[in-house]
Amino acid sequence: MSDDARARIFVGDIEVDAVPPNDRGLAYGDGVFETMRAFGGSVPWWARHWQRLTRGIDLLGIKAPDEARVREAAESLLEGCDSVIKLIVTRGMGTRGYGPSPSQPTWIVSRHPVPKHVEAITLRWCHLRLAEQPALAGIKHCNRLEQVLARAEWLHLPPDEMYADDGLMLDSQGHVVGATAGNVFALRNGHWLTPPLDRCGVRGVCREWVLAEPGAAEARLAPSDIRSADAIFVCNAVRGILPVARLGDRTWSLHPQVARLRARLAEANPAFAPMESP
Amino acid sequence: MSDDARARIFVGDIEVDAVPPNDRGLAYGDGVFETMRAFGGSVPWWARHWQRLTRGIDLLGIKAPDEARVREAAESLLEGCDSVIKLIVTRGMGTRGYGPSPSQPTWIVSRHPVPKHVEAITLRWCHLRLAEQPALAGIKHCNRLEQVLARAEWLHLPPDEMYADDGLMLDSQGHVVGATAGNVFALRNGHWLTPPLDRCGVRGVCREWVLAEPGAAEARLAPSDIRSADAIFVCNAVRGILPVARLGDRTWSLHPQVARLRARLAEANPAFAPMESP
Repeated sequence: MSDDARARIFVGDIEVDAVPPNDRGLAYGDGVFETMRAFGGSVPWWARHWQRLTRGIDLLGIKAPDEARVREAAESLLEGCDSVIKLIVTRGMGTRGYGPSPSQPTWIVSRHPVPKHVEAITLRWCHLRLAEQPALAGIKHCNRLEQVLARAEWLHLPPDEMYADDGLMLDSQGHVVGATAGNVFALRNGHWLTPPLDRCGVRGVCREWVLAEPGAAEARLAPSDIRSADAIFVCNAVRGILPVARLGDRTWSLHPQVARLRARLAEANPAFAPMESP
Repeated sequence: MSDDARARIFVGDIEVDAVPPNDRGLAYGDGVFETMRAFGGSVPWWARHWQRLTRGIDLLGIKAPDEARVREAAESLLEGCDSVIKLIVTRGMGTRGYGPSPSQPTWIVSRHPVPKHVEAITLRWCHLRLAEQPALAGIKHCNRLEQVLARAEWLHLPPDEMYADDGLMLDSQGHVVGATAGNVFALRNGHWLTPPLDRCGVRGVCREWVLAEPGAAEARLAPSDIRSADAIFVCNAVRGILPVARLGDRTWSLHPQVARLRARLAEANPAFAPMESP
């Protein structure tokens, strides 16, 4: 791991030195993950993350690790720091072949730096369309080559064309799904709308928080619904609500309803409170 | 690893003790694999496997490991045995986030037992439909949750309903794609037909060999084209050509054209020559 990352690895309840080479996470992406913002030595949204993780491992038929043990291991990495904790849970070791057999899950907790705070972000449209697989939609599983390829689209462009913090992805029907690393909300007629994610995409923990706010709802969105929105933001559980300032030729200034939602989020989760200016 | 499996792990040219916990293969299934039949201390179809591996890592933008080094490491596991070699190549270590940055690939070679020889197999239809993602179609990447879920469909059925060696999968349009762990060919009007795999599925090494035979061709196939075929077989590079004796209510006895093709395959690759009866 790099200097800014620490990791602990477990098979079932037992801490181990290394990921087994026959781990099914490595072979098939046969696992799920969570990326969690820590604050003041704990993870304020732990219960929300664990709930989504449980939905994923239940759907995949993976044995759940012990929650208290995982939380203890995750918090042991924090040393009181504001940081990001990543948790991967795989089906564990297996013999060759796709058929899953019962095994102890492998799980890895690692600590990472908090991304730099930004006031607003720039988006682009990704060319790659997401395939529709209702059986896997919504959960945060480890089959993420589509996101890797989408994110790689603007790594090799000329510098003046290149800048974007993230990209919006469409499904094969042309509906908006979300950013590669976050969910998108569009303000239209006073309502915050976000795609339903019943065919692809990840139901983010921060998205669930926003959806519980008054005036937020799921709706199929076309690219034109995004472009003509009064405001848009991307959200995830690491960075909270990220107002979008630019998408292609379209620009937005900070909308009071985004600022208001951000303030409410800061009340709900202290990790997303505004930074003190230096 | 279990007693019947041995593995060696490398990062670039350097042999290491363990898979790094921040390997992108583990995080995102960001890699490709090959499963190869070894015979008499080497892998007869090495060049074919390496060619497909190269197609996959080029498409994903993964740095290629040194072929001679990989082959040497793979063959070091054989000890002259007839066995199966699995090779995984991942993008290597990375910081958190989907964006790929240049890194040395991680690669793992492992040895596994040869599956028991069978004269014919039984298939079923899988319920799960494969999502269509043309950007990833054909290559043997490590995002295999669909195959894991499909294979799990008949793990928990009552014993009398349960028996099947593999299952056939359809895409979301209802076209036949193949078995979870092999490609399918159907004999119709004297031609061996197999799906084109331009939207999903893996272009198998044994499939490529069959397609180069006279009378074999790609064609979109509906389930009814399979059921009404004069013969069908599944093929892969571990087990060669597997005649299908049963699919649901339909049964087939061994067709002379399957036997003829199997004999030609045995000439082309000695690993697939018929076993001596004891």
